[in-house]
Formats: sequence, structure tokens, C-alpha cells
Amino acid sequence: MTEKKKWDIKRTLKQQRIKSVHSITEGKVIPTENIVEVMEKIIQSGDRVILEGNNQKQADFLARSLEKVNPQTVNNLHMIMPSVSLPEHMNIFEMGIAKKLDFAFAGKQSVRISQMLADGILEVGAVHTYIELYSRLYCDLIPNVALVAGYTADKKGNLYTGPSTEDTPALVEAPAFKDGIVIAQVNKIVDTVDDLPRVDIPGDWVDFVVEADKDFFIEPLFTRDPRLIKDTHILMAMMAIKGIYAKHKVQTLNHGIGFNTAAIELLLPTYGEKLGLKGKICQHWTLNPHPTLIPAIESGWVESVHSFGGELGMEEYARHRPDVFFTGSDGSMRSNRTMCQMAGQFAADMFIGATLQMDAEGNSSTVTHGRLSGFGGAPNMGHDPRGRRHASDAWMDLITDHDQDILKGKKLVVQMVETFQSGEKPTFVDKLDAVDVGQHSNMPIAPVMIYGDDVTHVLTEEGIAYLYMAQDLEERKQMIAAVAGVTHLGQTITKDQIDKLRAEGKVATPQELGIKRSEATRDLLAAKNMNELVKWSEGLYEPPAKFRSW
Amino acid sequence: MTEKKKWDIKRTLKQQRIKSVHSITEGKVIPTENIVEVMEKIIQSGDRVILEGNNQKQADFLARSLEKVNPQTVNNLHMIMPSVSLPEHMNIFEMGIAKKLDFAFAGKQSVRISQMLADGILEVGAVHTYIELYSRLYCDLIPNVALVAGYTADKKGNLYTGPSTEDTPALVEAPAFKDGIVIAQVNKIVDTVDDLPRVDIPGDWVDFVVEADKDFFIEPLFTRDPRLIKDTHILMAMMAIKGIYAKHKVQTLNHGIGFNTAAIELLLPTYGEKLGLKGKICQHWTLNPHPTLIPAIESGWVESVHSFGGELGMEEYARHRPDVFFTGSDGSMRSNRTMCQMAGQFAADMFIGATLQMDAEGNSSTVTHGRLSGFGGAPNMGHDPRGRRHASDAWMDLITDHDQDILKGKKLVVQMVETFQSGEKPTFVDKLDAVDVGQHSNMPIAPVMIYGDDVTHVLTEEGIAYLYMAQDLEERKQMIAAVAGVTHLGQTITKDQIDKLRAEGKVATPQELGIKRSEATRDLLAAKNMNELVKWSEGLYEPPAKFRSW
Repeated sequence: MTEKKKWDIKRTLKQQRIKSVHSITEGKVIPTENIVEVMEKIIQSGDRVILEGNNQKQADFLARSLEKVNPQTVNNLHMIMPSVSLPEHMNIFEMGIAKKLDFAFAGKQSVRISQMLADGILEVGAVHTYIELYSRLYCDLIPNVALVAGYTADKKGNLYTGPSTEDTPALVEAPAFKDGIVIAQVNKIVDTVDDLPRVDIPGDWVDFVVEADKDFFIEPLFTRDPRLIKDTHILMAMMAIKGIYAKHKVQTLNHGIGFNTAAIELLLPTYGEKLGLKGKICQHWTLNPHPTLIPAIESGWVESVHSFGGELGMEEYARHRPDVFFTGSDGSMRSNRTMCQMAGQFAADMFIGATLQMDAEGNSSTVTHGRLSGFGGAPNMGHDPRGRRHASDAWMDLITDHDQDILKGKKLVVQMVETFQSGEKPTFVDKLDAVDVGQHSNMPIAPVMIYGDDVTHVLTEEGIAYLYMAQDLEERKQMIAAVAGVTHLGQTITKDQIDKLRAEGKVATPQELGIKRSEATRDLLAAKNMNELVKWSEGLYEPPAKFRSW
Repeated sequence: MTEKKKWDIKRTLKQQRIKSVHSITEGKVIPTENIVEVMEKIIQSGDRVILEGNNQKQADFLARSLEKVNPQTVNNLHMIMPSVSLPEHMNIFEMGIAKKLDFAFAGKQSVRISQMLADGILEVGAVHTYIELYSRLYCDLIPNVALVAGYTADKKGNLYTGPSTEDTPALVEAPAFKDGIVIAQVNKIVDTVDDLPRVDIPGDWVDFVVEADKDFFIEPLFTRDPRLIKDTHILMAMMAIKGIYAKHKVQTLNHGIGFNTAAIELLLPTYGEKLGLKGKICQHWTLNPHPTLIPAIESGWVESVHSFGGELGMEEYARHRPDVFFTGSDGSMRSNRTMCQMAGQFAADMFIGATLQMDAEGNSSTVTHGRLSGFGGAPNMGHDPRGRRHASDAWMDLITDHDQDILKGKKLVVQMVETFQSGEKPTFVDKLDAVDVGQHSNMPIAPVMIYGDDVTHVLTEEGIAYLYMAQDLEERKQMIAAVAGVTHLGQTITKDQIDKLRAEGKVATPQELGIKRSEATRDLLAAKNMNELVKWSEGLYEPPAKFRSW
């Protein structure tokens, strides 16, 4: 070798960057007013930059500050954002500060992403599921800078992230141990570690902390007002409880965000109790602290809840129910999206969620024309984890052919959808919009949320299709059509064909399940409005203002 | 409600347990000589107890101490051990201290587990893959106590776990946030956090620390002496590089522990270089710091390595190659089995490993008669993660039918085995021993390591079977038979049938790949012995004594 190879280029660069802001920082503390100047010196054009946008918590002060850097100085950033939620997240692309985006979920910004992609303002690396995106931070997408959020920090960078820990540990660990730079915005900086409620992330992993101009933005995304639950939701919830949960003895599960699953939660202490199911189903949950789960918890249905993130208003309730929720030495809740997604993947017997579109083979997507929404955790939890090796009643119950030496159970992946979306758009379609979106956006594959061959049950107001029992693709398609109602797809199957599937136990209508449609009324809800949820919680649940209408 | 329900039973119990040892502890510090007494007070019969046994690092002082508790006082424990490696791990079952075991891997204790299971001394909950076991700690297997190991702690419980962080964060987080009790053995206790190299786990998460009687046991499990690499390994390694890595442009990957993959690592700077593959394959790795990877690293083949655990002797080398390895603010390496398994699952395009037995359909297992070995990380990395949504060249290259609207790539799962194991036992068998073991042990399913339909490539000294191209199960079986040599299975296929598969590109022999068997000699190895590895490392690699023979 003629010249000695350097092996610490990244470390040297990090030291240089930190040194460059020496005069405008106080140790690890960045004075609030200096954040833009620090960013301009610390972040280099072309850097891979994590900007923490989670399902709930947003590093919004850092997002607003990044928007203010001079695009002449800092540009062409490759942004890594689990959730793209704020206008600022997209503005930086329009300003040329950022160019490429890798993400997992886009809520309110899904239309804009789609438009900017079409206009060539933005390149999309890929649409991931959450832990897939975190995984790549440790492999082929190692970040240079991470901009994250916590409640409180001390001057040495120790962070308290508490109930809203969410994605932060996974986002911080990669740059912290690969000579990247970690900047955390917090609501408050305290002097020493003893002034923190507890330490969620060690100060060693954090290079800078900055007190934000206001508390970080957080959204109560998982709060569903029981007043908006309709009789159809209740009918479907009854079918789910009797025809899926009880049938397969589901004990470990994840619930999605919809009114359907909220209805299930509110029916456990009433309908579930009547069926004598307490203790026999639904004891271990991987989900956020849903307010609609309060009556089930108070009635003793729930052994444990591990959460991806927190839920605004549920902080005190969780603090007072430590036997159920994961809480820290200070008493407040701890969430962790990585661990909860892992538990949802490998430990949970069932994922139940919804979709905007499903095709004849059962492929589903929430990506529709003009909306590149991403899928968050659904692809991870909505598939059969083939690395799972432990058995459970529910997992074993999905084995259809026992006449084999080598058996394998299966995870329940349930899609619970009404046959029509609001606006009378059919849920069941001939072709997913996602196919065209993928082609128009030059994506290598269509952005499918859950693949048809991973779905084990489709539940609509018409009935349940037990897809795991399908002999082949043709029968799977028939079974989906059987519950697709009066959609075009639903009209491709005859009554005789449906009756045959019913007779074979492959499709069940409310009739088969012994459920009268007339029973499915709001009277069955353990709580009919937010106020009743607050009462169930003994006043511990404090709904955000927009949900207070009593 | 007549009586007010208690919601902090676990917390109250924790406080009581901690109070009960007040007089024999000094704050969070347990005097070494008091550990058994502390355990007898803190651990209650029937508790779920994590005892940290990892692939490398062992909480051996705590294991030895647990063996000394009075079985009259503490018994029927439900042990959770990722890796069961030490005699002490099994002795506690014989003594009645423990009764049930959930684990992921059993190396040297696999025979004893099998025997004790047969004798009814032990119940096995399940044999997991690592992150499946961690996942359950947050769901339906929440622990009461965790006994773990680190290098150094301060008196507030802050832990330095450094290069051997391994499973510790995942094992500690669950009990720390669910009112369990965490006890960490360390090699040394220092006064304050400033005396620690860095903090890997915050003191808030740790209830007690104890200085062990000697440094924790750690095994260099991933060190392969190049002297033991045979010409057959080299032939197979050449086939892997040309017929798999280069063919599919594999950039992100995991390597198993065997001599075959060690040979691949040592051929990259010679044979790989000759083929002009540098930069085109193998840039991002999820694996432990294998000494045999040193020449490839030094030759500039490797962009990044994230590790499950450390490797004894590689500490200084990793410290001096921070651009490649993940290192902390103190300069030493950081490993993390959870994040690395996740990266190996979701970010890596390829898993390549070996097995002891494979059946005609491609199912494989390392469980053989009398040995309940477990599988460690193989089931997790050796399957197609159906939640993955990002594309790469290798992943897309496994799509065989492009004539579909909805496509999906596939992970490469490569089984690299000689047709006969040492002792002339055939690798290819009519029935896996695991089937009988499962039945005799009353396991609900046979302990299969990797399922046949997850395997995309089988590579033997005879050739490569590209199983992902198989039209159906019948053809998959033919393709496996085609590379099964003179085993019974290999004799079930005719030369004409093999030639047809070769002509269709579904099977490739060395001839198809343009590899002469005579070229496959040890001369191709970049390092032929441990001493040459040390030289490549510029003296930074310090092999453990048992590998020093020059």
C-alpha cells in the first residue's frame, strides 16, 4: 500500500462538524435562537437526515427550523421520515433543501407527496413498513444526522421520552453508533439527570439538545369517539368476536385504528361477557392506549398492553393502571414502536385492520389515485411471520391439513371492511388503484399494503370469508366475492355457489353465526360517547379538547 | 363494585421485594457475597426469570448463584434463556429450582435438554428464533426478574455493555417497564457515570448491580481458523460467489458461522477481485465481527457491518475501523442482536447458512436424534419477510413471472451444505430426525429450522439448485435431488433429468459456472491461517489463546 487508508473518516467529519458550532452552542445545549445556524453548519448537502415524524409525535420545531436553512448552503438532502405528517415535511422538498424521501406512512401529506412525485420535485426511495425502515438504518441506509423529539433533556443529553417514546430509540441508536449527529428538541431542558423523571435514552447517544419554541406537536390519532360507531360496525364487531376471536381462541392480538375495531373493544364487556368469553380471548394486546379499550380494561378483560406510542389524554389513565400498561420507574408509560411492532409480528396471533381497496384475489391497499399514503405497520403485522416457531391455540387452529409430518400454524390476518367506503366507492375493485400509481410513479413494484395470500379472513357486513380454508386461488376469489355484497365483484358469484361455501364452513353469514341483525344496535356499546369513557376511567382519561362535546 | 380493584399489584410486589433486601444491599449495589441471599428474597417460586445466556456472553456468575439458592425457598421457576450454554443452565432444573424453559438456541447443552425433557425433569415452552422470544417478553411472556451481564456499572446502575451488548437491551427493557426486577452482574463497579466508557443501558432500568467473582464468560463462537478450510469449501465458495452473489448482485447480506461462508469471506479479495466484483456485491453486512472478514475489509470490499454480538479478540480491530463497524462515543464497538436480527430480516437481501439435515422437499433442521439444539437466528433470517416493501436488484431478480400487475421480490435464502456430514452421515434424508424428536417430546409441531418453501437456493459440492425457479413441489424435489450427490435422495434422479434442469438454468454445476474443480485450492484463500489474519489486521486482531498455534 502506498498511502495509508483512513478508517475514521466519518468520525473525523463528525468532530469537525461539532467543532464548527462550538461558539454558538453551550456544551450539548443549542440556544433555541441558534438552531438554524447550527443546522447550516452541521448538516451537509446530500446528507441522509432522519427527521422524526411518528404516528403521533413530531419533531416539529426541528422541521420548521430545517425549512429555514439556506438552500444554497444545505440542499439535496435524503430524508428518512417514518411518518410524513406536517406541511414542513414537504416544504423542504419544494425549496430544494431535500430531494429524496424514504418513508413508511404519510397521513395528511399523502396527496402532496403524490403530486410532488409527479412533478419531479421529489424522489421516493421506497415506501416501507416501520421496522423495515428502522432496519435499513443499520444496513444500507445509515444516517448522517438524526433530528428527534423528547419531552425533557438534561444538559448532558439524557432524554425523557416517556409515553411518547415511539420511534426515537431506533432512530437515535443508528447514528449514535455510526458517527452520525443526533439533535433532540425537547419541551424543557433541566440541569441534571436527577431532574428528569427517568432516562429513556442515554446522554451518550445524543450530541445536542435544544429547547423548542413550543411543546412538540402530538396528535390523538387513535382516539375514536363512540358516538360515531354505527349499527353496521356493531354487527361486524359481533361477527368478529363470535366468528373469529372465539372460534380460534385469539389471546394475543393487535387492533388497527378504525371504528370497526373500536366497536369490538366496546363490545367485549357486554356482548363478549354474555358469550362467557372473558379470560378466554383477548388478554394480551399490542396497541396504543386506545380510549375505547378502557371499559374492557376496567372489566378485567385485559392482562397486558404494550404500545407503539402514546395517546394524548391517556397519560394519567396509563399511569394508574401499571398492571396493564408498560410504565417506567417514574410511573409514566413507556412506548416503543420497534418492540411493539416486533411483538405484533412475532408474538401476536392476530392482526385485524381495514383497507380502502381490495381486489378479487384479496390484495389490498390504502394507496388510491392521487394519494401515496404508505402503510405504517400494516405490512409487518399483516403477514404470516414464517420465522415464528412457538405454537398457540389460535395459530394451530389455522392448520387445515393435519395429515403431514411437518406442520406449521398460521397467523390470523383479518381484513374487516364494509363493502362500500363512504361516498359509495366500492371497497372491492377489479384492479387496485395502487397498480396504476406504481406505474405512473415508476415504482419497481405496485404499492400493495397486504398481499392476498397473506389474508386469512375477510369480514364484511355480509359475512366472514375464511380464506385460510381456500383450496386454491380460484376458491379464494369465490370466497371473497361471497362477502363482497352488491359490488361488481359480489355480483360475479351465484347464490348457489355462496350456499355451497356456507355449507362447507368456508363462508359464514350472521345467520350461520346465530347473530340477528336486529340485535346489532348501539345499545350494546359499553360506552356510547366520550363522557362515558371518562366515567369508566374514573376521571383519569382526559380527552383532548376536540373530543369534548358534553 | 363492592371492593376497589387494585391496579398496581406488580409494582407493590416489586417494592416489597426490594425492601426485603434493604439490609443486605448498599443502594443498588449487591455485595458479591450476598447475591444468593438476595436471590432467595427477590425471586419467588413460579416466577418467570430471564437468565441471560447469549450466543457469546453469559451471565455466568448469576447462573452459578441461582444454582445455590435453596430449592425449598425458590422453585418451579419458568426460565427464559435465549441461549442455553452452561452446565449451570441445566443444573437448576435437576435441582427443582426451575421447571419450564423457553429458549432459542442450545449449543453444548442440546443433548442434556433432550435427555431431561425425556425424563420429565424439564418442560419446554417452545423453541424460538431470537427476536420471537424477545417479542413475547412484551406480550404473553412478561418476565418477573431478569439476570443479565455487562462489563461495567456505576453505583446508580448505568451499564456499559460495549461490544458484547448482544441481547441485553431487549431482555432488560421488558422487566424494567413492567415492574419486574433487573439484576446485572458486571466485571467492575465504578463510582459514577463519568467513570464509565459510555452508557449502553440507563441506570433507571436496572434495580441492582453486583460485581461478579470473575469476568463474565464469553466464547469466540464465530472464529474460524482458515487452516481448517478444505478444497471442497473453496469450490463451494467459488460457486456461491459466481453463481449466486454475482448472478443476483447481492449487496446486503448475512453470513452464518460455518467454514463454507468463512471461505467465501476469504475469497472475496482474491477470486472476487479477479471477477471484478468489488463494489458490485457484498457491501453491507449483518454479522458478528468475523476474523475471516478482515482481508475483505482491508481490501475495501466492506462498507458497513452491524453485529449481533462481539467476537473475542476483535475488540481492538473494530475500534480502529469505525467507518465499517458500529462504535460508540468511547470508540468501542456496539452490538445489538435485536436490531441486527431485524436488519437481517428486513434489510438484508440474502441469508446463507447450513444445516445438518435436509429432506426431499427442502425442509431442514439442526435438531437430530438426542439433540434439541434450537435454531438461534436462522428461522428469522432464513425466510422471506413478507412485510418487506423496498426493492433491490437481488430481491427483484428472484421474480420469475413478470407478467402480473402485482409483483413481489423475494429474499434469497441459501442453504450451503456438503452432501455428507462428517462421519459419512448423509445431509439429505428421507425424513428429518426432527419429526420424531417433535413427536417423542410432545411438541405441537416438528422443530423445523427452515421450511422448504422458504429456501431459494441449495448449494452443494455438486452444484446449485435454483429452487425459486421451481414450477411446483415436484420440480423442487427434483432440483434438490439433482445436487444431492450419491446420497439416497441423489440416486432418485436420472442423468437425463438432471441435464434437462441444467439446460433450463434451474441447476448449475461447476461446469455451467465455468469453474474448474482443479482451481479450487487453498491457494485462493486471502489468509491461510490465524497468523495471516493477524497480519492483515495490522496486529489489531488478537486471537484467543486456543487459536494461537504459530
